[in-house]
Amino acid sequence: MSGNLRVLIIGGVACGPKAAARLKRLMPEAEITMLEKGAMVSYGACGLPYYVEGTFSNINALTHTPAGVSRTPEFFRTWKGFQTLTGTEAIAINRHDKQVRVRDLKNGGEEDLPYDKLVLATGGSPFKPPIPGLDLANVWFMTHPDDAASLVAEIERQELKKAVLVGAGFIGLEVAEALINRGLEVTMVEMADHIMPGILDEDIARFAQIHMEDNDVELVLGETVTALEGEGRVQRVVTGKRKIEADFVIVGVGTRPNDVLAREAGLRCEKGIVVNEFCQTSDPDIYAGGDCVSNAYIHRQVGDPLYVPLGSTANKHGRVIANHIAGKPTPFSGITCSSVVRVFDYTLGRTGLSERMAQLLGIDYEVTTWSGQDIPHYMTGSRLFAIKMIASRRDRKVLGVQVAGMGNGAKRLDVAASVIYFGGTLDELADIDFGYAPPFGPPIDPLAVCAHVLTNKLDGLAAGIPPLEAKRLMDTGDCLLLDVRIPDEAKMEWIPHTDMLHIPLSELRERVAELPQDRDILTYCKVSMRGYEAQRILNAAGIDRVRFIEGGVAAWPFETAMPGI
Amino acid sequence: MSGNLRVLIIGGVACGPKAAARLKRLMPEAEITMLEKGAMVSYGACGLPYYVEGTFSNINALTHTPAGVSRTPEFFRTWKGFQTLTGTEAIAINRHDKQVRVRDLKNGGEEDLPYDKLVLATGGSPFKPPIPGLDLANVWFMTHPDDAASLVAEIERQELKKAVLVGAGFIGLEVAEALINRGLEVTMVEMADHIMPGILDEDIARFAQIHMEDNDVELVLGETVTALEGEGRVQRVVTGKRKIEADFVIVGVGTRPNDVLAREAGLRCEKGIVVNEFCQTSDPDIYAGGDCVSNAYIHRQVGDPLYVPLGSTANKHGRVIANHIAGKPTPFSGITCSSVVRVFDYTLGRTGLSERMAQLLGIDYEVTTWSGQDIPHYMTGSRLFAIKMIASRRDRKVLGVQVAGMGNGAKRLDVAASVIYFGGTLDELADIDFGYAPPFGPPIDPLAVCAHVLTNKLDGLAAGIPPLEAKRLMDTGDCLLLDVRIPDEAKMEWIPHTDMLHIPLSELRERVAELPQDRDILTYCKVSMRGYEAQRILNAAGIDRVRFIEGGVAAWPFETAMPGI
Repeated sequence: MSGNLRVLIIGGVACGPKAAARLKRLMPEAEITMLEKGAMVSYGACGLPYYVEGTFSNINALTHTPAGVSRTPEFFRTWKGFQTLTGTEAIAINRHDKQVRVRDLKNGGEEDLPYDKLVLATGGSPFKPPIPGLDLANVWFMTHPDDAASLVAEIERQELKKAVLVGAGFIGLEVAEALINRGLEVTMVEMADHIMPGILDEDIARFAQIHMEDNDVELVLGETVTALEGEGRVQRVVTGKRKIEADFVIVGVGTRPNDVLAREAGLRCEKGIVVNEFCQTSDPDIYAGGDCVSNAYIHRQVGDPLYVPLGSTANKHGRVIANHIAGKPTPFSGITCSSVVRVFDYTLGRTGLSERMAQLLGIDYEVTTWSGQDIPHYMTGSRLFAIKMIASRRDRKVLGVQVAGMGNGAKRLDVAASVIYFGGTLDELADIDFGYAPPFGPPIDPLAVCAHVLTNKLDGLAAGIPPLEAKRLMDTGDCLLLDVRIPDEAKMEWIPHTDMLHIPLSELRERVAELPQDRDILTYCKVSMRGYEAQRILNAAGIDRVRFIEGGVAAWPFETAMPGI
Repeated sequence: MSGNLRVLIIGGVACGPKAAARLKRLMPEAEITMLEKGAMVSYGACGLPYYVEGTFSNINALTHTPAGVSRTPEFFRTWKGFQTLTGTEAIAINRHDKQVRVRDLKNGGEEDLPYDKLVLATGGSPFKPPIPGLDLANVWFMTHPDDAASLVAEIERQELKKAVLVGAGFIGLEVAEALINRGLEVTMVEMADHIMPGILDEDIARFAQIHMEDNDVELVLGETVTALEGEGRVQRVVTGKRKIEADFVIVGVGTRPNDVLAREAGLRCEKGIVVNEFCQTSDPDIYAGGDCVSNAYIHRQVGDPLYVPLGSTANKHGRVIANHIAGKPTPFSGITCSSVVRVFDYTLGRTGLSERMAQLLGIDYEVTTWSGQDIPHYMTGSRLFAIKMIASRRDRKVLGVQVAGMGNGAKRLDVAASVIYFGGTLDELADIDFGYAPPFGPPIDPLAVCAHVLTNKLDGLAAGIPPLEAKRLMDTGDCLLLDVRIPDEAKMEWIPHTDMLHIPLSELRERVAELPQDRDILTYCKVSMRGYEAQRILNAAGIDRVRFIEGGVAAWPFETAMPGI
């Protein structure tokens, strides 16, 4: 036995079990032990909001395989062939002697476990902001199945009604939907001035906020929570500007890497444990992966390490670690910050750089926003959505894509992630042979159309103005809004402005004389295909100060006007 | 006026209007005329089956813009700025004088229209097989809105019940679904031994056939229709083996390019009009695009021109033509034979090479089939599907992907199309940072998992056997089928075989001695993750003649057994 490789894995969720199972298949003779501090192993934490929503009723489903078998230590021993110790905490790494001091949390007993290769998959913990009241009853963080189980049980037992969610990131949005669908009142407080800060740009986020408010989520943006107050149990959330009544509070303001063990062992850490492309730490016999490490961005476009804890990346790390230990190295290229979330009927997400990141990195970029249907308009289930795309001016490479709306944005995000991974340009993206049939998309895929618009913008053909910039110009400048839709459309819903003109596109060539040469004209239609046509027609007639509002009424991230409102 | 570029476009659907509209935006001064033989222009022919199905009730929706405006000659004149002549047929090209002889089909008058640049977008026509009876009443081809309109009208007027569809390609499958959903009886006759020949491989097609039969489509495969018979109207379809009663017949056995005009003008044609990457024909002042041209495969992997008429490609051609005429050339890289179709609850499709094509091209490839859920099993709407993936042994580049099943295969096809476009390898595919959230996918995307399996196969770790090969071995060889599922699963549905053994994976390590060393063992489970684990366990125990059935019971393309059946 002593000749076999001894692999010790600290952490029993996502990266840990993945590394262990893969390694056992690659090296059947390896002696693999996985430690987990808690009682549960290998649960799908990303499913917690859906348990809260009632999508499934048995919280243990999160530890089940698709065949319905629970992933217990016994499962891992008999099915996967490695040992799992739950209720066991690693308390120190002795790199010199290659052993880990562990404590049995049931009886307090300690021992040293030897390793040839050590894997740190210690995960992350919810960030606890430095405010009073976090320890009041009815305050939850949403990271472990126990949290979701007790939340649901207490909502029912205490008949809780008013929820305040602190933080408008992924978990916040998913839980907001879950609670609204359970019939509760939801107020969401976010320090930043828009939801999903750090993930979505302001324009896309604002567009999504309208949908959340339509679904009765009360958004309190740009306010920092300073305290949770109450007698024994939480009763109020206090911000710099107000007090919000609360029966319960869920705090989701970010995750921090569990890197204390690594730091104490002298391993290099920066925004998490630093690893190379094979997930080796600064000690080559110690690997790390999952929510405890920081990641590199692909193509070195971003210099700083990024902390983006995700189950998808954690599973990749697990495989990369096993492959490297087994002598079959497969480098991990890095992340592109892909993320996606469903909130009510909207799909929101991003892959690659946001516009904000591109600005901070000093990249010379161009950007556009497209909106339209995801499948042909004559098909049932055709839905509107918006795509925001960013490309490098220098080489026309696609840098980032964001989606928001009811349409199938998830498909386009994954395709975009692929294009960005391969360093593809706008022309290449538009050239890909996508599968076409009416149930799945229009003849030219929306992602390709968006790339076309951005190409047109780079070529100086399409003079689009982003919606936020349009709003600023409308609010502060002298500009004329030109609606070129047909009369029936124009009467239903429009972008409100003090100086508006309506000329249907079909009449524009003949009525060009009605338009001023010396003022900024912003054209628009439903999605801005016709807005763009109008811009080209006016340009051809010698009118230069004209731009079309990107995304049209459909993607307008502010209130629109309707008859009688 | 005489100084302006005169562009003549022959053909008013897809490629033609796209080229015209784009060119007018690029060159507002160009004088563009589009000819169309028929009365309708710019209709979405791909939507016809959905009209038959009743998804929408006004056939004119196929010519509407998303804003509900009909694409008439007047529309193109006032909105897009170019002239459209319907009911006008081009009868000859005079390349020397650069003019086209056209005939007004309403009054028979002829005239010559001059051009500086000519665009042939003459489309394709349904192939009419050389059999008697095609001219009987109640026989339809399904290529023009008039066909769909008269079909629906006659089904209702004559109370037609029994449909026979000749040909099991795209249109056949879509129309089969449409007719079944209208409550009709449908028999589908296909000359090849499986549906979608030339698109799907036999295994994937067989898997889909089970679903079609479950939905009451009667499949008659491997039989050639020799005649349609009846008194005035069709009453029977005759094959080499049988006569099938029919109230009506829809023939969909392929499309042929409308290239007569081009041939007569001496332009080079091979499986359609031959064009370069800018869609120029052998006469550089004459462009061609859409269903009248043949296409090149990207990366020169396929030497022969391919005839794959699709609305998506036609629209790309239109843009490429306009860009080249306007002096802003954007090459079209070629197609990857991407296609997708929905039939009942299944999504079927392919991108890249099929296994059959790879064989014919003499490529050294490896292949695998994966099956599983498209999103986590605990989510509502989680659905099974299968992915078949082919990669080059030499450089591990992904060559082709096919999907079939209820799960969201369309997303994975588009991602695969992108990977193949960029010449990506299996490792690169699995490395892409896909957006992850439970409503959209599991932590490791099915496409990445399938790439992992194929990598494992190339590395000699995973000894998968494709289902067709497994069936042949079971039918003709001496082999033991080893089911490693849990007892409850194993009792519900299994792969029938004369020599079967059931040992749950959890007991396999301890019961290895029960297995023979000297026989072929085929392991399997629901999707074959556990089948693979079992193979690795047996290998580790010194048993080498073991393979797992790829895709498991879930993707088994033959009848399975169930209790009492």
